[in-house]
Amino acid sequence: MAIKAVISGALGRMGGTVGRIISEAHDLELVGGIDVKKGSLFGTEVVPATGIDAFFKEKKPDVLIDFSVAAAAVENIKAAARNNVALVVGTTGFSPAQRKEIESAVEGKVPAVISSNFSVGVNIFWKLVREAARQLGDYDIEVTEAHHRYKKDAPSGTAKTILDILDQELGEREKVYGRVGATERKDEIGVHVIRGGDIVGDHSVLFAGNFECIEISHRAYDRAVFAQGAIRAARWIVGREPRIYTMQDVLGL
Amino acid sequence: MAIKAVISGALGRMGGTVGRIISEAHDLELVGGIDVKKGSLFGTEVVPATGIDAFFKEKKPDVLIDFSVAAAAVENIKAAARNNVALVVGTTGFSPAQRKEIESAVEGKVPAVISSNFSVGVNIFWKLVREAARQLGDYDIEVTEAHHRYKKDAPSGTAKTILDILDQELGEREKVYGRVGATERKDEIGVHVIRGGDIVGDHSVLFAGNFECIEISHRAYDRAVFAQGAIRAARWIVGREPRIYTMQDVLGL
Amino acid sequence: MAIKAVISGALGRMGGTVGRIISEAHDLELVGGIDVKKGSLFGTEVVPATGIDAFFKEKKPDVLIDFSVAAAAVENIKAAARNNVALVVGTTGFSPAQRKEIESAVEGKVPAVISSNFSVGVNIFWKLVREAARQLGDYDIEVTEAHHRYKKDAPSGTAKTILDILDQELGEREKVYGRVGATERKDEIGVHVIRGGDIVGDHSVLFAGNFECIEISHRAYDRAVFAQGAIRAARWIVGREPRIYTMQDVLGL
Amino acid sequence: MAIKAVISGALGRMGGTVGRIISEAHDLELVGGIDVKKGSLFGTEVVPATGIDAFFKEKKPDVLIDFSVAAAAVENIKAAARNNVALVVGTTGFSPAQRKEIESAVEGKVPAVISSNFSVGVNIFWKLVREAARQLGDYDIEVTEAHHRYKKDAPSGTAKTILDILDQELGEREKVYGRVGATERKDEIGVHVIRGGDIVGDHSVLFAGNFECIEISHRAYDRAVFAQGAIRAARWIVGREPRIYTMQDVLGL
Repeated sequence: MAIKAVISGALGRMGGTVGRIISEAHDLELVGGIDVKKGSLFGTEVVPATGIDAFFKEKKPDVLIDFSVAAAAVENIKAAARNNVALVVGTTGFSPAQRKEIESAVEGKVPAVISSNFSVGVNIFWKLVREAARQLGDYDIEVTEAHHRYKKDAPSGTAKTILDILDQELGEREKVYGRVGATERKDEIGVHVIRGGDIVGDHSVLFAGNFECIEISHRAYDRAVFAQGAIRAARWIVGREPRIYTMQDVLGL
Repeated sequence: MAIKAVISGALGRMGGTVGRIISEAHDLELVGGIDVKKGSLFGTEVVPATGIDAFFKEKKPDVLIDFSVAAAAVENIKAAARNNVALVVGTTGFSPAQRKEIESAVEGKVPAVISSNFSVGVNIFWKLVREAARQLGDYDIEVTEAHHRYKKDAPSGTAKTILDILDQELGEREKVYGRVGATERKDEIGVHVIRGGDIVGDHSVLFAGNFECIEISHRAYDRAVFAQGAIRAARWIVGREPRIYTMQDVLGL
Repeated sequence: MAIKAVISGALGRMGGTVGRIISEAHDLELVGGIDVKKGSLFGTEVVPATGIDAFFKEKKPDVLIDFSVAAAAVENIKAAARNNVALVVGTTGFSPAQRKEIESAVEGKVPAVISSNFSVGVNIFWKLVREAARQLGDYDIEVTEAHHRYKKDAPSGTAKTILDILDQELGEREKVYGRVGATERKDEIGVHVIRGGDIVGDHSVLFAGNFECIEISHRAYDRAVFAQGAIRAARWIVGREPRIYTMQDVLGL
Repeated sequence: MAIKAVISGALGRMGGTVGRIISEAHDLELVGGIDVKKGSLFGTEVVPATGIDAFFKEKKPDVLIDFSVAAAAVENIKAAARNNVALVVGTTGFSPAQRKEIESAVEGKVPAVISSNFSVGVNIFWKLVREAARQLGDYDIEVTEAHHRYKKDAPSGTAKTILDILDQELGEREKVYGRVGATERKDEIGVHVIRGGDIVGDHSVLFAGNFECIEISHRAYDRAVFAQGAIRAARWIVGREPRIYTMQDVLGL
């Protein structure tokens, strides 16, 4: 039987891409969407978030795929937990307090995959960055990411995960988000945020040492790669133990 | 007859590289150096800047090659003008006031090549950036430069010249030297300064448009390339009309 | 009144993208397509090339946009010339003989824009490559292009145009399409063809000199950028003097 | 007591760099060199290879550092084994037969570090490439390397080691050293050899998949990085069990 999926942030760019791919899949059924306003998504109904509980009771989805904004996502996640709907959460930008709220809503209630990036490649890229950090801890590290001109947060959620990985492996280092004037590089990590045109999503980590550099980079060519990963997570999460998983769990990395 | 050259900033990294190349050249003669303290440079005497006029009178150099720091360079340039010594100035970081002081010291007195970068390649790179800016004015522009971890100013003089070229061609745009938190890209130029390891000097200009990007980049592999260009300028400047020239003039670009 | 357009290669990837954009444009009307077999394209009829004359007489298109294969394109172009239909030709891989056949069919009969790449960015990129070649003729030059794993010809038409530009500016140099074993670099141009994944289209020209490199590169993120350029050419070509134009003419470069 | 070192290929580029660094080190003593012809190296004598046994008996070196050419290196290695001198071998381009000859000369006789690249960074880079290959086996893989215009073999020894690593992890795949004309990418590895200017040594491995790419790259800025690694290996190898080691052993990777 097909997995019934609801998308929140249904009218956004990622929501639309996820919706299109689900509507073309045989083993998934799109049963509706949630957004700030009413609308429709590949022939299904999109309702405002205020009606979410009634909507869940009516549609009985197996999984909610959330690509909305942080504040809305917290409420959507709580509603999913109340209604016993598994979760795939790709929304980024949660504060530590919001992150806690999500954890206490989910743990022991519903299974949830939460990730700042669902692409298979990015998850392997993160693993390689972790391995490189272990080996190259005495090199100078600089992180660069590039996205389209309309992206609203800096650095990207994916880059923040890179910085978390570096901190986990190397201890916390100061992050420097730009350099101008007199500078003196210390034991810091430079973070560079490029914004322009329609760049889908580039990330790179430079390790610069004694007369040599190593660089690991990832480039996305199409938003579909994130949507496909989220759908892979949706297939995987339904029926799991009720706790928080990462995309690394989904991929068995 | 060999051109007699004095180097200021003689005990610095660039001074040493210039000195070595002059000492190996047949048509140039290294007659001494100037620095904050006494020393020696490839068998010649390095004197403190306080004794510069006497030194010029004694050594009668044809040209002073200056790779020092902004404040010192202004005084060295005035002394050269007083003593009728042609100038090659690679020092960067002059304030507008210092720049004016240099101009009034030099104009009508001695010929001077002043450039933030003497490499032939960088000068052609600047020309290509100018041409690209003319064609791609409606693209989003981001400038990135990378240098070794000990470089003290940000962005590099070479990158500042890039920004000047973009302003000349496109009108003055806001420069953004880092992005973090909520961002909204406007009609701005992003400037990214990477510092790490022993990177000799990379510069790139990204033009990001409608589903496509054009990038122009320059990479230096060895400081010698800057020194060779300065020496080429030294050969060219001696005997010219007394005014300020750029490396573009030297190269006939 | 809307410009009436027919697409040949209508059932191919580029044909479909061009068709979608025309069907969404207000000033253009899609009146049908031509391909090896029957089909439909955004609600219009696609007929086999054998029926092309009858089709032109019935539909009275203003312009034929051709993204087919070389042999078919030659026939399509002749038919357009017989029926007084302007041309936009994006097909690549013509032999010199085919190119001659096209020229004699078109000259004095119908206006035609023929280009190996219709993106605005690529056309400006070519111009920058030409300028760089003029300045950097004594540098070693290497051309690299990357496309998705299904691309059938190597190097790309766009890369071939790069090589033509280099030959025009520098005189003809040997092209080396791979190096293995004992090698000795002479006055040659290395050409590197990368094939993998879903890469849309990257091109770069490296000028490597004395301890420094200059690189000019172009990256496409979406095939739409080529389709949009072809449509821009279609709007421009209708009503022009009957001869062959390039995309540089369309863009006034 | 200082380790006594002899260099073969003493008059070559790498030999000179190794010699300079040893002559500046406190814990190493340069006792002479071997090359095709007589000469001197930082104040020590360079003798022809024909006199190698007598030279070893006279100088009693602890270690021979070999950066010569394949045929000469085999003879030098045999001589070192005969005279009980430890080995650091950076020469590349051995045939399988030569490789066997070396193994039987060395095993059980003297300790030897043999590596196609002694830089610490390259050795970690290889490790990351191996890890990536394990994770990304279903991606299309393309290897690119770039070196100065005078490099005589293609691809570089370092790139060949990359190809060996990929074969070990993924099974043997066809290597394609250039693409031109009609192409169809299969389960192959593309290898691209760029030659130009003074490029010291760049290597990159591209993994191209479903709308995303991962790239791992290494860049050397100065040949000194290879020499320093060879000297690190020399310090490590003296007194070890008599067998062949890799630079990975030296670095404990």
